[in-house]
Amino acid sequence: MTASMAERGEGKQALFATLGARFGARFSQGQSLREQHANTLTWLKREPPDAVLFAETEAEVADCVKLCAEARVPVIAFGTGTSLEGHVNAPFGGVSLDLSRMNRVLAVHEADLDCTVEPGVTRKALNDQLRGSGLFFPVDPGADASLGGMAATRASGTNAVRYGTMRDAVLGLTAVLADGSVIKTGGRARKSSAGYDLTRLLVGSEGTLGVITSLTLKLYGIPETIISAVCPFISIAGACNATIAALQLGLPLARIEFLDEVQIRACNAYSHLSLPETPTLFLEFHGTPSSAREEVEAFATIAQAEGGGELAYAEHQEERTKLWQARHDAYWAVRGLRPGAEVLATDVCVPISALADCIAATREDIDQLGLVAPIVGHVGDGNFHVMPLIDPADAEERRKAQGFLDRLVARALAAGGTCTGEHGVGQGKIAYLAAEHGPGLAMMIAIKKALDPLNILNPGKLFALP
Amino acid sequence: MTASMAERGEGKQALFATLGARFGARFSQGQSLREQHANTLTWLKREPPDAVLFAETEAEVADCVKLCAEARVPVIAFGTGTSLEGHVNAPFGGVSLDLSRMNRVLAVHEADLDCTVEPGVTRKALNDQLRGSGLFFPVDPGADASLGGMAATRASGTNAVRYGTMRDAVLGLTAVLADGSVIKTGGRARKSSAGYDLTRLLVGSEGTLGVITSLTLKLYGIPETIISAVCPFISIAGACNATIAALQLGLPLARIEFLDEVQIRACNAYSHLSLPETPTLFLEFHGTPSSAREEVEAFATIAQAEGGGELAYAEHQEERTKLWQARHDAYWAVRGLRPGAEVLATDVCVPISALADCIAATREDIDQLGLVAPIVGHVGDGNFHVMPLIDPADAEERRKAQGFLDRLVARALAAGGTCTGEHGVGQGKIAYLAAEHGPGLAMMIAIKKALDPLNILNPGKLFALP
Repeated sequence: MTASMAERGEGKQALFATLGARFGARFSQGQSLREQHANTLTWLKREPPDAVLFAETEAEVADCVKLCAEARVPVIAFGTGTSLEGHVNAPFGGVSLDLSRMNRVLAVHEADLDCTVEPGVTRKALNDQLRGSGLFFPVDPGADASLGGMAATRASGTNAVRYGTMRDAVLGLTAVLADGSVIKTGGRARKSSAGYDLTRLLVGSEGTLGVITSLTLKLYGIPETIISAVCPFISIAGACNATIAALQLGLPLARIEFLDEVQIRACNAYSHLSLPETPTLFLEFHGTPSSAREEVEAFATIAQAEGGGELAYAEHQEERTKLWQARHDAYWAVRGLRPGAEVLATDVCVPISALADCIAATREDIDQLGLVAPIVGHVGDGNFHVMPLIDPADAEERRKAQGFLDRLVARALAAGGTCTGEHGVGQGKIAYLAAEHGPGLAMMIAIKKALDPLNILNPGKLFALP
Repeated sequence: MTASMAERGEGKQALFATLGARFGARFSQGQSLREQHANTLTWLKREPPDAVLFAETEAEVADCVKLCAEARVPVIAFGTGTSLEGHVNAPFGGVSLDLSRMNRVLAVHEADLDCTVEPGVTRKALNDQLRGSGLFFPVDPGADASLGGMAATRASGTNAVRYGTMRDAVLGLTAVLADGSVIKTGGRARKSSAGYDLTRLLVGSEGTLGVITSLTLKLYGIPETIISAVCPFISIAGACNATIAALQLGLPLARIEFLDEVQIRACNAYSHLSLPETPTLFLEFHGTPSSAREEVEAFATIAQAEGGGELAYAEHQEERTKLWQARHDAYWAVRGLRPGAEVLATDVCVPISALADCIAATREDIDQLGLVAPIVGHVGDGNFHVMPLIDPADAEERRKAQGFLDRLVARALAAGGTCTGEHGVGQGKIAYLAAEHGPGLAMMIAIKKALDPLNILNPGKLFALP
């Protein structure tokens, strides 16, 4: 990268002229479109790209990457823009490569319980298309994110405890690398020992090693019986201990979600409910009629021993939705607590034995700071989100929130955990990777440099390269 | 690598003098020890290392790798030597780094269902040490392999259909890289999105990217009830279709193993049994008393619809062992079919819908060639092993077997499968990686070159570097 700024600027204009000629109206430098393609959901500042390109085929993705590489201009893959860590920002400018129009389900193999999709298909769109097949795709981050974006950030959600994360869900994928070459990783076999696990290397690489152009995903049969349940607890420790006991007993819980009393209060206000304002678990059981009921009973016994109140449960779809209303609306309820505020997204994940202490210490920290910050946890995985609501114009509040985040991550790392369970690093967690990975960070950077020597693919994410 | 052969020979002798001085009797150039550290289990030729070093600590592993790297001498990690693809051979000489004395279980975290072990701990030794905890480690390749070796080859076994492979079992690990640096990947959190998945990159890398020095593994609660069952079928297709139907119904089978009629005949002879000599499924169900029995009944109904005979089942340990005797002894029964012959290990894995056709075509190929070659399959994963017994001195038979292997792999790849489901590439499957991965192979080699530029770590495995 020895070109002068002027030369690079000229190269960029020439590139944009080429892309405009090649892609017509699907290439745009319009301001509002560029702003829609920057981070919009969290307190991280918006850094719009120079231009947006809507790709419709793998070949177009490859062309775009090749042309950008020649001109030394960054390429930022974009799905739905629902990332919480600034993944779609363009700190060094460049082209936002919007894949939302690559939204076809290419194949569903019912006998093999898998499907192949383009990266712009969202998780809800996939499940809509699977309707009638008796199959479903389980991974469910809060947003209706694109499956390419979910793979790129190694996303999960409420039922990872039973069905795993995107790490587990992706059997194989195709991707365009930094030099414009197209690779296919994995396949449709359920397991393989044939060389380096390129699938898992690309899943979670946040667009820094390649742009995903298709994914083969595992599917599951819709369970015969689904029972939803809600159980209030006296203490956070009680809710966490009940979770540990259920996991140790091997109860195959499909979902076990924790909401603290602040979050329940927010949900009561937002969704007009009257839940007891106390730490609460929301559960879901998948099985046959008898196995699901057996699990509910087993969990009720466990909960009682840990100070749990009465377990409310429901089997019919409509009642289940009503029972879980608070959980479904949690994110919007949080925002309702302080209109106009920005959310600081946090996402630590710890060994489950450390969860109760980690949440308790975090709650204490919040209370001392006087922050408004509900807690929602995928407690079966040891993963929880604290969501401080911050006035972006208040420097003192931002400083407080930053200190809070630093301590939260330090607490998680000290317990053997991670700074991010499912959101990814993006821009917001870069500062913590050295502490989490030590010399492993140098190994990551060595891989990045080998595969993207020009640092074209989503620069400024995951790590700050020199 | 511009040093002349003579200089390299001198460098090697100087290195061995240094290692001898540093490690005393734990470093040896004795011939019988060297031969024990070459491939011994399959038809691949033995290629002993120049020397063997027994390391006892991570620091010693790091010292060995550093010294070898300085002298440009290969390092081949060695666990129990039970690899089936020549992984422990030393085609370019070098030091076999024997890790079998690093055999301590470092920690068991019962509440978190995980443990940390040194790489030389074998899977059976781990389960022995877990006795009394109510927990077990599920991954079970046939041999009592070391856990480091199992991770390095991404091994699995009979219960991967329920509990996954080493890819899923390893939460994190420590490893010594080619430059002697020590990295720690992953952690004890159940999930993480914090950067590239170095754990999964090292699992299955066959000692070519790093030497694993410790592993953190997922554990599971021993199920309350275990039921074993055996079911004969009229045809291979019937057995495969019953498997597909059970998976589609979401039956959480713990094990579902296929033995063809040739294998059953071998087992009857070897273990003095009188099983009907027909394609047969061996099953295991894990659950509560009622859920396990419910599954047995559900499977019996499925089997009947696919031409299955009567399902024999047992719940008590002793009866279960008796019922599964044939499966347990399968490998030795095969060798008993033709004493003195060598086994060609094969390991294709295909989408389950392709399994019946793939096995049938393979059986036909065997019969046309007149080979003795039983089939055993982990059919829940679509993975099966054909084991031709070859007279190593008979060139014509070797040629036939090679042709058979080529066609078997081609058939699997055409079905979207892989040349190796669980054994790894080693030396024996190198020839197939280009066809399986296409341009992905160049990406693997780019990673190898970035992380081991001197090609010190297990050279000649996974790919033939120029």
